Formats: sequence, C-alpha cells, structure tokens
Amino acid sequence: MKPIRIRGKPAKYPLICAPLVGASPDALLAEAAAALAAQADIVEWRVDYFRDIASLQAVLEAGRAVRRALPGVPLLFTRRSVAEGGQPAAIGEGKIVELYEAVCAEGIADLVDFEMSAGRAGMAAVRDASRRHGVGLVCSFHDFERTPPAAELAAQFRRAEQLGGDVAKVSVMARGPEDALTLLAATLQASRELAPALIGVSMGPHGALSRIAGFAFGSALTFGVAAAGSAPGQMPIGELRAAIELLRR
Amino acid sequence: MKPIRIRGKPAKYPLICAPLVGASPDALLAEAAAALAAQADIVEWRVDYFRDIASLQAVLEAGRAVRRALPGVPLLFTRRSVAEGGQPAAIGEGKIVELYEAVCAEGIADLVDFEMSAGRAGMAAVRDASRRHGVGLVCSFHDFERTPPAAELAAQFRRAEQLGGDVAKVSVMARGPEDALTLLAATLQASRELAPALIGVSMGPHGALSRIAGFAFGSALTFGVAAAGSAPGQMPIGELRAAIELLRR
Repeated sequence: MKPIRIRGKPAKYPLICAPLVGASPDALLAEAAAALAAQADIVEWRVDYFRDIASLQAVLEAGRAVRRALPGVPLLFTRRSVAEGGQPAAIGEGKIVELYEAVCAEGIADLVDFEMSAGRAGMAAVRDASRRHGVGLVCSFHDFERTPPAAELAAQFRRAEQLGGDVAKVSVMARGPEDALTLLAATLQASRELAPALIGVSMGPHGALSRIAGFAFGSALTFGVAAAGSAPGQMPIGELRAAIELLRR
Repeated sequence: MKPIRIRGKPAKYPLICAPLVGASPDALLAEAAAALAAQADIVEWRVDYFRDIASLQAVLEAGRAVRRALPGVPLLFTRRSVAEGGQPAAIGEGKIVELYEAVCAEGIADLVDFEMSAGRAGMAAVRDASRRHGVGLVCSFHDFERTPPAAELAAQFRRAEQLGGDVAKVSVMARGPEDALTLLAATLQASRELAPALIGVSMGPHGALSRIAGFAFGSALTFGVAAAGSAPGQMPIGELRAAIELLRR
C-alpha cells in the first residue's frame, strides 16, 4: 500500500482529491475555496474545462492564483482528452506537451496526469520536464464505457510503470457490481507487482465502493466532490472521509 | 437483490441488525434499549451468551421481555455453536432443537438462524417448526478462521437452499483484502442462481467493506453494533447506516 510522493515526501494514504473544473479564474477560485473548506488533501485542476486553455499566459496566471488560494495543498495538473472523458478544448494536441512543460517549470503543479494514449514521444517529453522540476508523473488510462477484462487492466498498470510513471492510474466504468470487484482485484495485484503508487477507480454507481474502499486494495488517491464533480460516482468529501475512516478503524 | 421476508412481508433492503449478547435479562434489556436508540431494523438474540440457556422457561421469559422492549422490531433468534464462533453454552446439543421449537411456537422469534453443520435431522425439525409458526429460517455457515475458496462458498449457499432455508447465510473470516472480494463475488453469484434471500459477511478488518457494500452484491442484512458486537469487524450502526446511504445515492 504505497503512498504517492509529493515533492519527494510520502503523502497521506489515501489522499482525498477535489477536482477543480472552473471555466474561468473566478470559478476556479470559488472551487478552490470549497476544496479548502472541505479539507481536501489535494486538488486536481482539470484544465480541459478552462476556457482560456489555448493561452499559456492565462493558464499560468490562473494556476498561480489557485496555488495562492490553496496554501499547503498540493496541485495535480490534468488535461483530460475527449477520448478519455474530458472536455473538448480549444487547443491543438501539439500544444499540450508545451503546456505541461510550462506548468512544471513554473512550479504550478506538484503532480501532472498525462494520458498514456497520447503516445510515447509526448509522454517522454512530459516525463523529462516533470522530473527536471521535481514534479510527480501520473500515467493514466480511462475507459468511460466499460471495465476491460482483468488482463487488460493489469497491462495498463504495467504500462504506466514502463513509461516511467511515479503513479499509475486506471479509471474505468462499472456496468455492474462485478466490475467494481475486477478493478479492485487488478489494483491489489498491481500493488504487489509494481513499483509506482497506484490510483484505481471504478466509476459510476456500481463502482462507488471503490472510492471508499480502494485504499485497502492499494489505491493511494480517491476523488471526492467539494464544489463540483468531474466523473460519475464521486461523493461529497466529508461523507467520503467519514466512510474511509470507518473502514480503517 | 432479494429482501428478507418477515412474517410474509418483504423487509427493508438491506436490514441493519444489532446483536444482543447479554448474559442476563437485565443485560439483554439494556442492549435492546441501545438497539432501539440506534434505530436498528432488526435484532439478533445470540442465546448462546445467555447464562440460563439450559432453562427453557428462563429463555422464553427473557425472550418475551426483549420483545416487549422492542415494539415493531423483528427478532432473529440464534444459538451459535462454539465450532462456528459461538460461546460455550451449558446446554446439551439434544436440547437445542427443542429450544428452537419452543421459541417458534411461543412467537418469540420472527426468524431463526440454524447452523447447517448441525445435520439434516435437526435442520428438518427446525424447518418444520419454523414453517408451522410463520417463522423464517436462516440456514447458516460460518468459518472464523479463513475464507474458503469460491466453489466452497457457492456450495454453502446452495446447501442452504436445498435445506429449505428462507435465507442463506455465509459468514467467513477475511485474512486479506482479496478474501473480501471472494465473499462478495460468491454472494453476487448466489443472488443470481438461488431463490433464498442472502446474507454474505466477510469478517475481520479486511472484510469490513462487505458490511457496508454487501447489499450491492445481494446481501440483505448487515450486522452493526448498538451496545456490543458479536463478531470481528462490526461497526457502530449510525456510521454503518450513513456509509450505506452514501453508497446508495
């Protein structure tokens, strides 16, 4: 049961992460305030929701404002593609790596999430930039349609390690209760075989127990709602924390 | 996802059940008051904890007092053997069936739990008495040492149906996180194949999530603590209920 490392130090296990999905700096700051009030352990800035994503300057400014609003709260920076459940964003794919490089260099992010489907070249560049600036890399895979078979989940976790991920994230939709078990079992298996910290999520109502109990299967981070959610099945942070603490006793 | 039927009517799904483990009528009444305060949906009287278990008269009197103290709350009557995690009780095995028959006839119990390991003759007698008096029968299997393989769990659920159980209960100790998944998967499988309502429990800290999430896998009853627990991993009823409601939303 490996914790995620943030700036070299092992963080709380598991981390409760509030997504920020604001389209404007004001909206982001309101969400940051809600995350602070909910005592989120970390926030994920889902920059694909940000209206001015195409302006590097606007992204960096908003990022700095969010950091100031969240003293001591680590920030995970994520651009989710449409293919993996993100928002259609007015930015060319070629600019994404640049964006990640700048966010690492400017100290906006403590962790960045980069999708494995983006390909090896982009991943290598992001791996380089993140390492150079002490930023942790989450190599991620999402399937919003279904839960692939156990062997495919295992392969995605393994691939994240092969690509140099500090954290391997697999998040897949549960169509029935057995899908939640498949994801939890795959996460547990990966925690025994792989070096990176893990995030395993079973999305949707059938996967909800993974958000509470995932930590017992090696998942080091769980997403909860402070102001607004970013994926199906996320729960309010206060109740999520209470349920996790109940299970840990 | 079949609810348990109580006096012919489908009950709430899932039921939260508070065990009563008092050695004396006074202790039982104190626990009954705690169960009422915690708004338990049902109580289980674990009569193997009762000091005067050898006196049929004392058992019936205590049972009547408990019923009066819990208006509208159904009662599950259970003598757990030492072999399946119960208390050493000063009563010959030959007297147990008689005890169950009297408890059914006197309207003390709405449900009775009888262990499948007691053998076919005893089970048939208890099945007869319970049916005659409109009492539901829980055919149960416990293993406080380990979680048997999936095929054995499936066989125990099936056996409960074959023995005429209205409810099939399998409660086994989790030695690691995968054991909880095995129990949940077996419960789900049984819910698709068998007619009885089910209770599937993964005991101990590693099984704790089954007490919260079992309902999503077909388990119609979960045990929680009002005053005192009766098995490892049971949680306080208020927090248990909150976590179940969080998962159901």
